Amino acid sequence: MKSKDIVLTGDRPTGPLHLGHYVGSLLNRIALQDQYTQYVMIADIQALTDNADNPQKVRDNVMEVMLDYLAVGIDPEKTTFFVQSMIPEIAELTVLYLNLVTVSRLQRNPTVKTEMQQKSFGESVPAGFLMYPVSQAADITFVKATLVPVGEDQLPVIEQTHEIVRSFNRIYGKEIFPEPKALLSQVGRLSGTDGKAKMGKSMGNAIFLSDDEATLKKKVMSMYTDPGHLRVQDPGQVEGNMVFEYLDIFDTNKEKVSELKQQYRHGGLGDVTLKMYLFDVLNALLTPIRQKRMVLAENKEAVLQILLEGTKKVRQVAAQTMQEVRQVMHLNYE
Amino acid sequence: MKSKDIVLTGDRPTGPLHLGHYVGSLLNRIALQDQYTQYVMIADIQALTDNADNPQKVRDNVMEVMLDYLAVGIDPEKTTFFVQSMIPEIAELTVLYLNLVTVSRLQRNPTVKTEMQQKSFGESVPAGFLMYPVSQAADITFVKATLVPVGEDQLPVIEQTHEIVRSFNRIYGKEIFPEPKALLSQVGRLSGTDGKAKMGKSMGNAIFLSDDEATLKKKVMSMYTDPGHLRVQDPGQVEGNMVFEYLDIFDTNKEKVSELKQQYRHGGLGDVTLKMYLFDVLNALLTPIRQKRMVLAENKEAVLQILLEGTKKVRQVAAQTMQEVRQVMHLNYE
Repeated sequence: MKSKDIVLTGDRPTGPLHLGHYVGSLLNRIALQDQYTQYVMIADIQALTDNADNPQKVRDNVMEVMLDYLAVGIDPEKTTFFVQSMIPEIAELTVLYLNLVTVSRLQRNPTVKTEMQQKSFGESVPAGFLMYPVSQAADITFVKATLVPVGEDQLPVIEQTHEIVRSFNRIYGKEIFPEPKALLSQVGRLSGTDGKAKMGKSMGNAIFLSDDEATLKKKVMSMYTDPGHLRVQDPGQVEGNMVFEYLDIFDTNKEKVSELKQQYRHGGLGDVTLKMYLFDVLNALLTPIRQKRMVLAENKEAVLQILLEGTKKVRQVAAQTMQEVRQVMHLNYE
Repeated sequence: MKSKDIVLTGDRPTGPLHLGHYVGSLLNRIALQDQYTQYVMIADIQALTDNADNPQKVRDNVMEVMLDYLAVGIDPEKTTFFVQSMIPEIAELTVLYLNLVTVSRLQRNPTVKTEMQQKSFGESVPAGFLMYPVSQAADITFVKATLVPVGEDQLPVIEQTHEIVRSFNRIYGKEIFPEPKALLSQVGRLSGTDGKAKMGKSMGNAIFLSDDEATLKKKVMSMYTDPGHLRVQDPGQVEGNMVFEYLDIFDTNKEKVSELKQQYRHGGLGDVTLKMYLFDVLNALLTPIRQKRMVLAENKEAVLQILLEGTKKVRQVAAQTMQEVRQVMHLNYE
């Protein structure tokens, strides 16, 4: 029997998902769906906050992300998928919540501050971007989520949701919304193939779940290792070597990895041999996902139907929540 | 036959309407409803931007404002009334438009700047308040309004709507929304009974359409005249004298007003006599409105029905607009 807790999680459909998502969130969702009521949201409206001029990209990636979800084993029998833009109640709650948050509070939000710098908006921060923690509070609360899987860097968003829930409950006098708990990710971030701290969709350093075998091989063969390891017989460095970072995470044969590390440090293990081994490990992991994904992609209409059926179910939850909100806010005219 | 133009106007339900509204907007709407398709919105969501902690006040005033509308002769056969909170599409468009406007642009909006100072929010400007020009753009555009009656001070809001419409049309490639024209009010602001530049709902200087005869008399008798006019035989000043300002606006007998002015300037016309005359003029104007309002107030259920029927009609317009928006923004999943 499932716990009473409700999980809300999801992704912005701005690109297909990669190995970083796989270890950082997808595996977690596959586990969570057996324990909890789990909603997975494709956040197309949030994707538009910094992709307003490219809605086709967002639209295309809704399907890519759905294919990734289903291919890795998030199960529509256990998890409810939905698309954010089809839930008008999220926009309604966002507008109502905006009155409970000050502009300066949003400008102080550490997550927003960091991301604004990364995206180098300069003086041209879209209002929708500044507001996105409020929109996320609406995402989380409309399904009355009690657990939200997040990385450490997203904790301020959960804190913002707490503040909104507390204000709402204090002003409108009913405990409609629970204060959600953050479910901190166990696994840290996966580094990019280039050795950079983070694998990113558009950073040219990602291995996508949808990459074909040839692409996977090419990406593995060009991974960042030890730049000082020039000849096979030279000793090589394991620390900061992406191939070993990936083996530590993805190879279940820990003994073999330990042997390879020893051999690499000692000298006599070439990068090509080592990378071919990692390729085999990753390819064994990704082949069934890739195959399932190809089968699913042959019938995109059926995949869309899964998303639409989940969305329909979520609309009922949303309507129920909004009815309660309208009642305590004296907005129930009918 | 009506013009093809569409008028969008309305009020925040934060108090009953007064003589300032009567000359500033209500008379205009009575004229406009014969020429145009006119939508009158009761902006309860906007009222919450600075009344989030008092939703009952907002709710109560929705009815007061409807009673005022119907009592003065805005005709539900000619004008469509609706309540903002029942149109989720306005919230949806608001959220989408927030991506097309920068934070600094909103902070530079002269109307917002002035009102923020008036309301003395200090450092605690609610995000919803800063955003309200975007919400107004949603109000205006979802019915594809082409004419928006405004005072001079609200012109920046129309300008903001133009910018959003232009961005939207440029990015999403279809001319879904017209650029609305401002319909500048012919009449300036009505001063308060205390001589202050503006009659305000909560400034203690307003004559409400719903005031009973005794209240009206009391308010007229305490109006600001010429503080130097102490004895009947003294010459008095007409300029800045509220009684004459009101007579100029409300007395159709211009000859009589001219005579009274001459007499007042010359000396020999007492304030009490003069005020009793103004009282008669205003009472003649307000009595039928007051009576109609009392009859309407006996059947508030029927008044609510008028609002709900209008709202139902507007929901169809909203759904149609949103369908077009979803199509060009590639958000049409069904």
